[in-house]
Amino acid sequence: MLFDARLFETRFFTGFLLRWTMKGNERISGTVIKRLPRYRRYLEELMHKKTGRISSGELSRLIGCTASQIRQDFNNFGGFGQQGYGYNIESLYQQINGILGLVREYKTVVIGAGNLGLAVANYIYTYEDGFTVAGMFDVRPEIINTSANGVRIRGVSEIDDFLAEKQIDIGIITTPSANAQQAADRLVKGGVKGIWNFAPVDLEIPEDVAVENVHISDSLLSLAYYVNKTQSQQDAEE
Amino acid sequence: MLFDARLFETRFFTGFLLRWTMKGNERISGTVIKRLPRYRRYLEELMHKKTGRISSGELSRLIGCTASQIRQDFNNFGGFGQQGYGYNIESLYQQINGILGLVREYKTVVIGAGNLGLAVANYIYTYEDGFTVAGMFDVRPEIINTSANGVRIRGVSEIDDFLAEKQIDIGIITTPSANAQQAADRLVKGGVKGIWNFAPVDLEIPEDVAVENVHISDSLLSLAYYVNKTQSQQDAEE
Repeated sequence: MLFDARLFETRFFTGFLLRWTMKGNERISGTVIKRLPRYRRYLEELMHKKTGRISSGELSRLIGCTASQIRQDFNNFGGFGQQGYGYNIESLYQQINGILGLVREYKTVVIGAGNLGLAVANYIYTYEDGFTVAGMFDVRPEIINTSANGVRIRGVSEIDDFLAEKQIDIGIITTPSANAQQAADRLVKGGVKGIWNFAPVDLEIPEDVAVENVHISDSLLSLAYYVNKTQSQQDAEE
Repeated sequence: MLFDARLFETRFFTGFLLRWTMKGNERISGTVIKRLPRYRRYLEELMHKKTGRISSGELSRLIGCTASQIRQDFNNFGGFGQQGYGYNIESLYQQINGILGLVREYKTVVIGAGNLGLAVANYIYTYEDGFTVAGMFDVRPEIINTSANGVRIRGVSEIDDFLAEKQIDIGIITTPSANAQQAADRLVKGGVKGIWNFAPVDLEIPEDVAVENVHISDSLLSLAYYVNKTQSQQDAEE
């Protein structure tokens, strides 16, 4: 491949933005950070369909929030929107990548190699550039030493040594609820900086380790509302 | 079991609330509906720890939003909070159940019986009262006619007949992205009222069928932000 100046520029620009935004990051609230992946998702889709700029109004209709929220959120990291011109889609996407820290690799381990653990590992392998599954762990002798997506499943007794040896960034918990806290304790002891928890239980985690809980149930219950509403209306019409 | 008057009252009360809230539901916005499962989750936890009442201030600290948002959201369905008294935890929980429609059973089918499909079916079986998995479908001959949690896995060719025969409320899509739209089309044709989509792809669905997309990636990317921030701070200190 020939030297691609555009790529270089993008990387240089992203690096600059990253350093620039890291300084100001203290001001960005947790609720804004939570919305950034969603903005990023829509921007990524837009990049497949069109190029150039988009107004906060268009973006708000697409995402389903107010234009003023979008402008406020983007102002948090310098904005880069111009009155009457809108936002440059690709530059905004790169800025968000920079803020989220998606300019490096994150090493993960998965605790619990049941269906959920295998599904999450496969999801990362298939869809998430920049994240790797370095190890998987389980308690069941019959699956230890089998492998999934080229990753060997190890016994939980090996976790401590594994974490001590490799620099793991994120521990993923896909165990049953009853074993989740114990898994979390070992991950914290092993020095991970973040925990992605799929067990439907609240974990006690020291403040310097970040936790994201995946509550798939929330969207199922929202769905129940709409299904029930549709059927109530149909019943009323009959 | 003897006749339990309290249970009867609760059910009667919930039924009343349901009819009452159904009338006013048109006013409740989608964003509020999206927040209800989250409120419900915290209220359920509270019910295990304490009883009685809670102020919007306490609730807001617990959930991590503003007290004014909580008051506004609850006002949408009549509120029932009293100045200086706060909200009755159990009654609020029951009200939210009523609004979400969690006073009946929802029948689901799962399309895609890979690790993700099996994990989601097992999740419903283990944690979600009121939802049942009536059928699972896959294309791979080697797993057709095996079963998971007592549910037989059927070939996709059987979907149309199965949906025509049973009254299925919700179709769950856990196929690879490339097969998700086809699965959605068959579910819609078969008369489901809602689709719970785990494939990371936008589906085209008629307006009278509700869709909830599960974007697990969003929380992984938020986590990356915190992990990156922690490590940047540590690097700066070293």
